[in-house]
Amino acid sequence: MTTGPILVADIGGTNTRLGLAGANGIHKGTSHRYRNSDYTSFYSLVGAYLRQQKVEKCHKACLAVAAPVEDDAITLTNRDWHIDKSSACAVTGATEIRFLNDFEALGFAIGRLSGGQVSHVAGPKTATSQNGTRMVLGAGTGFNAAAMTLDADAQPVVHAAECGHMTLPVETPNELLLRDHLARNRGRASVERALSGQGVLEIYQWVCSHTGVAPQNFTTQEIIQQAIEQRDETCEHTAKMLVRLLARVAGDLVLAFLPVGGLYLSGGVTRACKSLISSDLFWDEFTAKGRQSNLLRSVPVYLMTDDHAALEGCLAAMMMTGSHLSSSGLRGHCQNSITSKAAGF
Amino acid sequence: MTTGPILVADIGGTNTRLGLAGANGIHKGTSHRYRNSDYTSFYSLVGAYLRQQKVEKCHKACLAVAAPVEDDAITLTNRDWHIDKSSACAVTGATEIRFLNDFEALGFAIGRLSGGQVSHVAGPKTATSQNGTRMVLGAGTGFNAAAMTLDADAQPVVHAAECGHMTLPVETPNELLLRDHLARNRGRASVERALSGQGVLEIYQWVCSHTGVAPQNFTTQEIIQQAIEQRDETCEHTAKMLVRLLARVAGDLVLAFLPVGGLYLSGGVTRACKSLISSDLFWDEFTAKGRQSNLLRSVPVYLMTDDHAALEGCLAAMMMTGSHLSSSGLRGHCQNSITSKAAGF
Repeated sequence: MTTGPILVADIGGTNTRLGLAGANGIHKGTSHRYRNSDYTSFYSLVGAYLRQQKVEKCHKACLAVAAPVEDDAITLTNRDWHIDKSSACAVTGATEIRFLNDFEALGFAIGRLSGGQVSHVAGPKTATSQNGTRMVLGAGTGFNAAAMTLDADAQPVVHAAECGHMTLPVETPNELLLRDHLARNRGRASVERALSGQGVLEIYQWVCSHTGVAPQNFTTQEIIQQAIEQRDETCEHTAKMLVRLLARVAGDLVLAFLPVGGLYLSGGVTRACKSLISSDLFWDEFTAKGRQSNLLRSVPVYLMTDDHAALEGCLAAMMMTGSHLSSSGLRGHCQNSITSKAAGF
Repeated sequence: MTTGPILVADIGGTNTRLGLAGANGIHKGTSHRYRNSDYTSFYSLVGAYLRQQKVEKCHKACLAVAAPVEDDAITLTNRDWHIDKSSACAVTGATEIRFLNDFEALGFAIGRLSGGQVSHVAGPKTATSQNGTRMVLGAGTGFNAAAMTLDADAQPVVHAAECGHMTLPVETPNELLLRDHLARNRGRASVERALSGQGVLEIYQWVCSHTGVAPQNFTTQEIIQQAIEQRDETCEHTAKMLVRLLARVAGDLVLAFLPVGGLYLSGGVTRACKSLISSDLFWDEFTAKGRQSNLLRSVPVYLMTDDHAALEGCLAAMMMTGSHLSSSGLRGHCQNSITSKAAGF
């Protein structure tokens, strides 16, 4: 009695992507992106989506969230949305639901993406070890990473992380001043205080105040675009600091996870920086690891260009058998007694 | 035709520990530690050991080395010793040999150590998730870490790393000055430039020059001991910087690997700091991760007190079946044609 599609969702800090799938893939034309700020809760967003898709009941659901995944409920790190499995089951009608960290979902997507969804951006074209560890990392609303290894049955195992909260690695007096600016009223500056959409704005503000330039009302994407087109020196200065820090953090995480099978970059901020990541600016800093530089030079760097890549990972995770579930993504079975009404919307 | 014992070895930058084992464990009284500087090569060291133990031929050998493990040969990162599998087979007589990174071996040792080999030093006494990821990290001649996960058959999978080469995470003007001191003539300061035996000496030299104190001819262990006994202010200042950086790096790596099953500290420098690691100095910095502080507070922190712990890990790795070998530790079968003479000693 398996009725209804599988709901796959990637719930970021700013946008949510939703899709409907069967065992063979995501159904064409069902993947859509929504701005979280247009909805009061995830439940109202997914309810509207399912009505629009004319779906009364999903079979299962896999929700990738920009937050640590624990037990039966999650609260988004960068938005005050709370999602619990019972309510999510109620609104979707699913009898089984799974939470994943959003980068865990991207980890499951590695190796399942087609040529049009991934682009080579730096380093060697192919990995020396095709079955070696692979890793995805990147900056969007926040920053994170996930390593993907293959088990004895060649099934993917994805290792969730909270890399965005690691210490921002600064190396120069200027970078320390930026770090102090980012740490103001927060006690510390984590990686994602710089490597995120909000981070780009704050780096820009700091560069302006540091150089005595009046800040303009640019968005994150505009700052990066102005820099790429070399139309604004302050934006260029901002993007240089951003890409240098991104490359340093990426290099550090390569040393931690040894993704000899390849490094995959993801996230809206990272994608906006594509041409800068393909430049020496990124590569020189990425490989500047002293005696381990050759290790870094051996890692091919790809960019996940498809904004919906995590949905593929959700489906892959949902189709896996019990013994291959990774540690953090616990399956939850819904109680039949919970109805939409009980879920409070 | 399985004759002879299994040779297990932990080849560090300063010392090498050797032992002889059977399927049931390391034979009593066979574990010994040797100073590398007393020998011209690993081959001469192990040759002397086997003669002393009256062993003509080993069955298999597992060598844990303080270096990245690649293919059939390794060169120690912090000593100019080169070890290749053919020569190691020749000198030991083993028909099968395995290289592991030394922290990979410590990863395999997690969960196999008895009460007398591990001591609780900080955080909750037990982990909330007994089957969750566990991690070992620490400072000795160098610094490194390794995460250990359980596969679908509850067999350990150890993930090798090169964390000692990550960027040293500094946060204050004083720490940046120390970083510049450590980076002099090297271009950069990695984690192990501070968190290592040599690192302690260099932090001490920097504190002396920074405070205008004439440096004394202390060893690493003496500096830490003077600090613990509060007998020398400069040593106390040095140890504080050391433990704060160790705690920050440990906290960062917890965010990267999420070892909800427990964090195990290892290494001679780390062990010497035991009482400081049990103090607020370590815990306050370890848990200072903003919105993720509660995650850090949930991780029990243990110290591997047994200097020979890696040997247990070598034996565990050697006893595993083929399908459970981790990616980096490739087995190598010896060619019969290679003799001791051909190995060049």
